[in-house]
Amino acid sequence: MEQIRGGVTAAKGFEAAGTAANIKYKDRMDMALIYSSAPCKVAGTFTTNVVKAAPVLWDQEIVKNSPYAQAVIVNAGIANACTGKQGMDYCRGEAQTASGLLNIPENSVLVGSTGVIGMQLPMERINEGIRKLAAAKDGSIEAGTTASRAIMTTDTVNKEIAVTMELEGKTVTIGGMSKGSGMIHPNMCTMLAYITTDAAISKELLQEALSKSIIDSYNMISVDGDTSTNDTCLALANGLAGNAEIKEKGEAYDKFCEALDFVNTYLARKMAGDGEGATALFETTVINAATKQEARILAKSVIGSSLCKAAIYGHDANFGRFLCALGYSGVQFDPEKVELFFESKAGRLLIYKDGAATDYSEEEATKILSEPEVTVLVDMKMGAETATAWGCDLTYDYVKINADYRS
Amino acid sequence: MEQIRGGVTAAKGFEAAGTAANIKYKDRMDMALIYSSAPCKVAGTFTTNVVKAAPVLWDQEIVKNSPYAQAVIVNAGIANACTGKQGMDYCRGEAQTASGLLNIPENSVLVGSTGVIGMQLPMERINEGIRKLAAAKDGSIEAGTTASRAIMTTDTVNKEIAVTMELEGKTVTIGGMSKGSGMIHPNMCTMLAYITTDAAISKELLQEALSKSIIDSYNMISVDGDTSTNDTCLALANGLAGNAEIKEKGEAYDKFCEALDFVNTYLARKMAGDGEGATALFETTVINAATKQEARILAKSVIGSSLCKAAIYGHDANFGRFLCALGYSGVQFDPEKVELFFESKAGRLLIYKDGAATDYSEEEATKILSEPEVTVLVDMKMGAETATAWGCDLTYDYVKINADYRS
Repeated sequence: MEQIRGGVTAAKGFEAAGTAANIKYKDRMDMALIYSSAPCKVAGTFTTNVVKAAPVLWDQEIVKNSPYAQAVIVNAGIANACTGKQGMDYCRGEAQTASGLLNIPENSVLVGSTGVIGMQLPMERINEGIRKLAAAKDGSIEAGTTASRAIMTTDTVNKEIAVTMELEGKTVTIGGMSKGSGMIHPNMCTMLAYITTDAAISKELLQEALSKSIIDSYNMISVDGDTSTNDTCLALANGLAGNAEIKEKGEAYDKFCEALDFVNTYLARKMAGDGEGATALFETTVINAATKQEARILAKSVIGSSLCKAAIYGHDANFGRFLCALGYSGVQFDPEKVELFFESKAGRLLIYKDGAATDYSEEEATKILSEPEVTVLVDMKMGAETATAWGCDLTYDYVKINADYRS
Repeated sequence: MEQIRGGVTAAKGFEAAGTAANIKYKDRMDMALIYSSAPCKVAGTFTTNVVKAAPVLWDQEIVKNSPYAQAVIVNAGIANACTGKQGMDYCRGEAQTASGLLNIPENSVLVGSTGVIGMQLPMERINEGIRKLAAAKDGSIEAGTTASRAIMTTDTVNKEIAVTMELEGKTVTIGGMSKGSGMIHPNMCTMLAYITTDAAISKELLQEALSKSIIDSYNMISVDGDTSTNDTCLALANGLAGNAEIKEKGEAYDKFCEALDFVNTYLARKMAGDGEGATALFETTVINAATKQEARILAKSVIGSSLCKAAIYGHDANFGRFLCALGYSGVQFDPEKVELFFESKAGRLLIYKDGAATDYSEEEATKILSEPEVTVLVDMKMGAETATAWGCDLTYDYVKINADYRS
């Protein structure tokens, strides 16, 4: 497996576009299209929130019942959530417009929205946007990058990646783009992730690979503990790489999964580091936990704690907050046995051992915590399982962005 | 039942004091004493965090195994948590010092600490503080107020209350003081609450009344979702009111419980409104839920959401965030049936109904949300159960306080 330049247009047969449709933002792109020249197997994972946005309900139906998918239309600015029957009609309207312009079936068009909840989409501008997207789409690397920029809301950087691998003598590519932060605990700005691949793979295995892949990628990030109404991760596979279709588990499936995990973990980590208002990526790795699930719960409890996040922002080695967050996670353990380290490019420091602080240097700890990527490493000494979670620091700007977001 | 002036010294036989012991803060009081001239039955509820501070472990032992309690020593500034064996030795040291000065058994002395985790207590100054407290204690209303001020950390107001009731012809008083915010989801500053009463009541019923009372009071508040290592609520009953000892459930027990609930709810609400950096008390009442437990979960999910809290700070009627927080609470419901209102002294407004926004006035909504006490009222239309939770808004100052807290 090798990382290459590009994103959703890296795999064969995929085209993309971005445009400014004036949905809510002024003077910036806010709509994107992904299109495949060949019909795609499609898999999806969606928010667990009981309140699901209209595009989530629409996409769930397509993933479940359509024979294939061929396009995704995404808008930023308005989430089309809490919009009742009208919201569902607008999803169908988007699919109809795209269907006519791209000459593909209505039920092969997926839609995605991110932004303010409760507002209705301005359908005239949406349809005009789809017309512009259909006219502008192409298969260049640049078109993929444009699409990844067009789905940003409070994101400060676009997020895309592509990798290739050899499967039985054929070059297979997976590309992806995402915006926002989180899946289990996402930012209200919503996490949207779109994965495109030219691999030939059965729908069942594509779904299984995706469902498994999100557990240790998107599901291990949190910006603010709020699970959005819109979270969506879709994977489209058009089979144009020409590999023998992956229909059962084995070497080819494993290689595909490894590449898919790499892509999803990259995008997830990137989202966490670009959390609203963040100045640092805050990573927590738990080692030697009794079970994998406990390792995950412990790591997520730490990166989800407001007080730990504020300590990272303040470059403050306030290690008690990290112990505290482990302690209320729900996992049982002996605090006397745990060891806690701070780690970054600037070094690695044992902070807590045998139930109390070590004789560490505050100066060195502050230096380590002042890096843009900071890791809290926790050794539970209970078993052999490991998990990593990613979050970001809690800053004035997070409050500013979210107190002012709608106005 | 009638509310009267005072706090922990309102009930017969209780004395209190506060002093500046220079534990960590400069030029302010940071130690308090509660003392009863007669031995007390004692009940306690404590943090559920696996990482428990030394004073929590000490108090749990006293509540469980001591025949009675007679004094509480509290310090602010250092939490005596994550302090290993030394931390436990220091608890015993405090009890020994108090025991000698007050001429009471060592195992009748409860201790409490709040502040930074991981630092050891400066025992010389602590012991000097206990000497000053023992010399200064008295039974005046003012002494109770002084004690309630001495346990503050980032609190901006002291919190105390007292009520009286008639039990079989005798006047019985319950007083209380608290600091911080939260019990299940408390601020790291820790919630400490101390209830004093001259009621005669069996230890078993005192514990049962307290354990039940915290469920809909302290356990329904949240400032930041972080459950402290130090949370403690103690109730001391010295029996000096002269009522026939409450040994079984019945009218007297019910009246006592009603008064205790009033005291705890008052203190809990006051803590939520004084959450770190808060500008508003943010109350959520869920009505017509299917079960009491679901009503509680829904209400707590809303007041715990960073995005809802930021919206309250911004006076922004961003109702989708409130629906979203209900949706990820874990409770199943039909979003189309829910009704959501904003309410405050400035009025009441139906915002969301039939799965979408009503045609409400943004101006009026902003006016309602600009009051210092704001309620989100949610009608689930599923049953007849109600619960209320209390939190506060999320502000720049919360981040400032917690990024700088330790330094």
